[in-house]
Order: sequence, then C-alpha cells, then structure tokens
Amino acid sequence: MKSVFLNTYSRFEFEDLLQSFPPVGTETVAFNRSCYRVLAEELISPEELPAARRSSMDGYALRAADAFGASDNNPAYLECTRRLEVNEYPDFTLQSGECAWIATGGVLPQDADSVVMVEYTQEIGSATIEIRQSVAPGENMMERGEDATIGQRMILPGSRLRPQEVGLLAALGITEVTVHRRPRVAILSTGNELVAATEHPAPGQVRDVNAHTIACLAEEAGGEPIHCGIVGDHLEELLPALKSALAQSDVVFLSGGSSKGTRDLTIAALSEIPGADILAHGVRISPGKPTILARVGTKGVVGLPGQVGSAQVVMAVLGRPFLRHLAGDHQAFSQKLRPLRQARLGRNLYSRQGREDFVRVKLEPGPEKTLLAQPVMGKSGLLRSLLQSDGLLVIPAEVEGFQAGEDVEVWLL
Amino acid sequence: MKSVFLNTYSRFEFEDLLQSFPPVGTETVAFNRSCYRVLAEELISPEELPAARRSSMDGYALRAADAFGASDNNPAYLECTRRLEVNEYPDFTLQSGECAWIATGGVLPQDADSVVMVEYTQEIGSATIEIRQSVAPGENMMERGEDATIGQRMILPGSRLRPQEVGLLAALGITEVTVHRRPRVAILSTGNELVAATEHPAPGQVRDVNAHTIACLAEEAGGEPIHCGIVGDHLEELLPALKSALAQSDVVFLSGGSSKGTRDLTIAALSEIPGADILAHGVRISPGKPTILARVGTKGVVGLPGQVGSAQVVMAVLGRPFLRHLAGDHQAFSQKLRPLRQARLGRNLYSRQGREDFVRVKLEPGPEKTLLAQPVMGKSGLLRSLLQSDGLLVIPAEVEGFQAGEDVEVWLL
Repeated sequence: MKSVFLNTYSRFEFEDLLQSFPPVGTETVAFNRSCYRVLAEELISPEELPAARRSSMDGYALRAADAFGASDNNPAYLECTRRLEVNEYPDFTLQSGECAWIATGGVLPQDADSVVMVEYTQEIGSATIEIRQSVAPGENMMERGEDATIGQRMILPGSRLRPQEVGLLAALGITEVTVHRRPRVAILSTGNELVAATEHPAPGQVRDVNAHTIACLAEEAGGEPIHCGIVGDHLEELLPALKSALAQSDVVFLSGGSSKGTRDLTIAALSEIPGADILAHGVRISPGKPTILARVGTKGVVGLPGQVGSAQVVMAVLGRPFLRHLAGDHQAFSQKLRPLRQARLGRNLYSRQGREDFVRVKLEPGPEKTLLAQPVMGKSGLLRSLLQSDGLLVIPAEVEGFQAGEDVEVWLL
Repeated sequence: MKSVFLNTYSRFEFEDLLQSFPPVGTETVAFNRSCYRVLAEELISPEELPAARRSSMDGYALRAADAFGASDNNPAYLECTRRLEVNEYPDFTLQSGECAWIATGGVLPQDADSVVMVEYTQEIGSATIEIRQSVAPGENMMERGEDATIGQRMILPGSRLRPQEVGLLAALGITEVTVHRRPRVAILSTGNELVAATEHPAPGQVRDVNAHTIACLAEEAGGEPIHCGIVGDHLEELLPALKSALAQSDVVFLSGGSSKGTRDLTIAALSEIPGADILAHGVRISPGKPTILARVGTKGVVGLPGQVGSAQVVMAVLGRPFLRHLAGDHQAFSQKLRPLRQARLGRNLYSRQGREDFVRVKLEPGPEKTLLAQPVMGKSGLLRSLLQSDGLLVIPAEVEGFQAGEDVEVWLL
C-alpha cells in the first residue's frame, strides 16, 4: 500500500478520482449486437450515403427552372415521360419541359434537380401534369453523400451506440464494430451475519441483499456481474477472497456491514495487497459517507456502505457512472443525460451544509401537470422506504434545505 | 376485416387504443434474473422482515428508561455486561442499569428497547459506560416485522421489478417469481428497394435500416425482436409474410416505404386477414402521421412510417410504451417515469396547431446550469439529424410554437 489519505471528498472530487481509472479493453461484435455498447474505434464511412440522389417525397422529379414562379394562379405544365419504380436506377436524362413520377426514396433521373410534392400537382389528360408550386433546386430530395461521404468520420470513439447509430451501421453495411468489453464487476459481501439469498437464516443471521441489488445496477450500467460470495468479518477470510475477486474482474464492489469494524477490516485487507493505493476514505454525501475507493494496478476496489439504502444510493450516484466510464463512455459522468425530473417539493426539507444529501422521494401528480416530490421517511436499514421511492432528491452541499413548493431536481431510481 | 375508420387520432386517443391490447402470458424466472421484468402475481411475504429486532447503529443497546434525561451535563452510567457479535442471537434479558455493546445489524437482547449511538457514549473503566444522550424507546433500531409481516402484500402485479424489489426478494428468500414473458416482436420490412444490411445494394437499392433501429428499441423496451426479413411491395409477398409474422409473435411492426402506395398495400394486406380490425389510420403527431394500428385476434399490427426518422419517433413515443404495456407494466404510459429533461429553447420554433410536434434537439450547456435545446434541422429521410440529436422537444397540439428562451420539455432519445 503506497499511501493512506484520511480525507473524504466531495462527490465531484470523488468523480475525478473515478475518472482516473482507464477503460477496459475491446472486443469485436456484430453490428446488430452493438446497441448501447461503447465504440472503441473511430467509425469511418466506407461508402457514400445516400449512394444516389433520392426523393424524400411522393411527387414529380423535374428541373426547378421549368416550374419557376409556378403557383395556383399561374401553374406550369410539364410532360410526364416516366413513372419511376422506387428501386429503379434511371438511365435517362430528364429533358427541359419533362417530369417523372417518383415515390419517396426513388432515385432522380439525370438533370432533374428537385421534386414537387404530389399535393401541388394534378394530372391533366394522359401525360400532362399541372404544377402549382415552384421549387428550389435540391428541394424535397437528398443529395448523393449528404449523410456520409467516403472516408468521413461518422462516430467518435467513446460514443455509446444508440438505436440510430446502429441504424447508421446498417445503412453503411458495417457488419462488425470494435467496442469496449463489458466491465467484469466482482461483487463480494462481507459479514458474519450474512447467508445466501437461497438459504434459510438461523436466528441472528440475515440473507445477503446487497449482492443482488448491486448486480442489478451493475448489469444496467453495462457491466457483467460476477458473484464472489460471502465472507466473514476476518482478515484471513477477506484477504484471499478480495485477491481472487480482483484476479477475475476489472472492478470489485465490496459490500460489508456498515459498522466501523467492517470498514477498518476492508482497509486492513487492502493494506495487505501489494501496490494497493487507498484513494479515498469517504465521500461527503448522505447517505453513503463511509465509501472507500482504492486502486490496485489498473483496477478499482469500491467499499460500499453496508446499509442496503446507503449502498444503493452510492451505486446510483457513483457506481453506475463509474461502470459506464470503465466501459469507455466519454459521457459517463455527464449531467446531460442523467435520468432526472423537475418536481415541486411537497414539504420543507432541511439538510446539514457541507455534504450533498440524497433524499428518497415519491413522485405524485401535482397541480398544473407538475410533479410533487414527497420525501419518503423511514429508518435507515429498512427496505420499505427504498421500495416506496421513485427517485432521489438532491440537496447540494452549499444549500441548507428547500421550502415546500420549491422546484427541485429528482434523479430517477 | 370488421371495420375501417378513416380517422386519425391524437396521441392520447392512440395510447388508449394501444392500452386495449391484453398483456402477454407469464413465465417463472429465478429472482436474480427478474430485474426490470414485470411481476405477474401478487408478491406476499412468507416471512417476517427483519426476523428479529436489530440495531441500525453502532452503539449500546439499553432500556430507554435507564438513560431518561441523559445529557452532556447529566450523563447516565450503565454497566456493559456483554459485547454482542453481529450474528449473535442473544438469549439473555437485559436488566435495568445494564447495557450491551451492539454493532449495526446486531440483534437486541430481550428487554432492551433502544440503542444509543457510540458517538454519545464513553467507556469509563472496564465495564461502565457513560451515556450522554437520552433515547426514545424504538430509537436506532428496527422492530421485528417492520419491513414485512407474514402474509403482507409487498408488490402488486403489474409492477416493474427494480434493483430494490430484487433486493426484497433476496431478503425474503423468494428464489422464483412469476413475471410476464418478454413480448415477441416481429419486425417486417417492406420495400422493393430494400436489401439486408449485410448485402451490397445494386444501383437503386438501399440497405434496410429500420429493421435494426426498431429491433434495438424493442429490445430496450423489454421485447424480444424477431427479424422477419424484407418483402417486396406486392400483396402476394406481403400477405403470407404478415401471416407468418403474426403466427410467431405477440405484435408485428411493419416498416415500409412512406409512400402512399405502401400504406395502401399494408391496409390491403390487413383486409385479407380474417378478423383483422383496423383501429387507426393515422395519428396526429409529426413526424409519424401515417401510422397504422390494427388488431388481429389479441395481437397488434403497427404499420410504421418508412422514413427512418419518422419511424424512430413513432417507436419512441408510442412503440416503446406499447411494448411495456404488452409486458404487463401498469405504468407503461405514465408520464411520471419517462426520461425527460427541462431545457431552454435556443431559438424560436413554430408549429402547426392541431398536431403534436416532436422536434429533434441537441442539448447544450446553457447559462446557470440550464440546458439549451437547439433544434437539429435536416431533411427528412437523412440519418444525420438523428445522429446529432439528444432528444425530442414536444410542442403540444394546442400550442403554436415556443419562443427562444422558453422552458420546454425534451424526451431523451
């Protein structure tokens, strides 16, 4: 162990520490299995897209000059020489005075430069079309290469692939992409009182809850949970279990009792691991203060508080963005895309300054389409208040509290 | 086909139509594979939780009466008779004047009724503890059964299981639950110009993009996508493909060209299917107006617009909540938990009244921690504007538009 800082950090400082870990390695996946994975390479277009000039409307392809000034009172009349099939590649040149029926997606003939929508046209006799609106060159059509040109940088590394990015891969015929692996998340529970969820606890014992809530949250954040079981509150049990967890994962989440003894034990175990560096001994958020962060080589060890509710808050606030960061997402800690809601506070709420408070709230319909955030009270350690909550109301460190009726920010759980 | 309504519906009316479909059937899954699935049964607690009276703090278990009125100036002195292990089930009765060291999670001895936090205590000599704060009976401890009593209804059918609900299952030792199946979502593309994403298009052809964006969105909404391939714009191809898609799925998403011809073809194919009932011929949203909804038996058929961007908006606005509804989620259409953000509009935006407009926007940091919503312009049919967008700004049907600087609601994409 290199050093011990007995400091605690604000959430923002703690986030900086988390961001100092490198992302995990890469793998190649089929494009249609890549959704919500993070791109690890620059995506370069191998083709032009669209590959041809295509209509974006049902109507008539024409030369814009032929309908210049056309209107209801002063229509233009063009000869419709062809009806183009949507999958047809026209090998003819549109002459002046001519137009061609074209469907959405159809390829424009040579020398046609625009499309007039069918709504502004009328068939007059067998082949004459009345055009009642002028169009600008390029109107109602897509130019060749307007979406992508050959060699164009389309998606940057570190981008999470959404359905629309997968759609781009399909459009370009890119059938494989290099993405970051899913971070392997070892989950280790410590506590003499814990038994597995599948067991029947003896008097004094309880089933391990944290391992399962953490696994769900890790999986949701793109990680691959690895259950490493339960160990007792003894260094001789914890140390080999921690080493084994580190060997098979990219990051370890240790969830122990929240008593001081368990925290000291985690620190003691880390101290025995060569090269381990304890980065933080706490974070100034509530609940969640006794969170430990250490680095072992390139891998992280997070010591979560043992209380179910506290552990869940730390996972939601810090653990999930950390896992997204490890998965290579360059927006992992961005506030921009965090699922949150504005709401009005249902009653006064006080907070100790100097720490950021996360208060569990239920969201109820309020007046005028607003949402009312109703704080969910409950003893720490109970599951009930977690079950009743829709989200976490954030009281910033520098704020003393909020009054009933104030606008507040709620992070959805 | 029973009837054809040539009406279009508002989004809210359309949502009512979607909600008239029954949820899919059920299956039994292991509790630790149940996260984000929808519970199909009432979850009844088989046990008391906590099973014993437990401390929620590190400190001393005592009889509150023994520390009545205790303070810094007037401490109480108790004899510490035991140090309780966290997994110990104490078989003794705490006498008046006694206390016992207890860690968070530890079981209280009989006749102890509260815990004083270690911070308000001091060891005086070997067995005497100075108590500097009074506590109320029940303080800093959890009563037996406070989270759950035997036979108590814990989770209602139709609830989506979040990490905290999975935690409750673990705590109660419930290892299997009955949830709704994932809806099987058949995806069928129509268009003479379409080829598979893995193929090289001939001149005039394009690769099928919609099948893949729809599959991603369906999977995200809890569905199980089934790719049913591409068929040409001919009734003799579409009709058997549609029948086959219906036979192997709970709902069919048909994505065709957006030309009038394709829409007519979809209607024609549905008209040939015995018992098919066309519920809607359009929805008053933009983009997305030419959306078709039909019922065949208990199954739904949704005809999406062919333009990639329009299809994605319809999937995000209607398709995803529809799939959540089919998966049994009783909050599928609730506004409460939709991922959205408040933002300030970057520039004036006008809208035609009478329809709800969904405008693609990019979110940028604005002044004072606000977000600026910048409309992303781009020709319909291009992928580029979809790739640049973070969300959809909603302009309600009764609103003419928004001014730059106004607060607007953005649905994250």
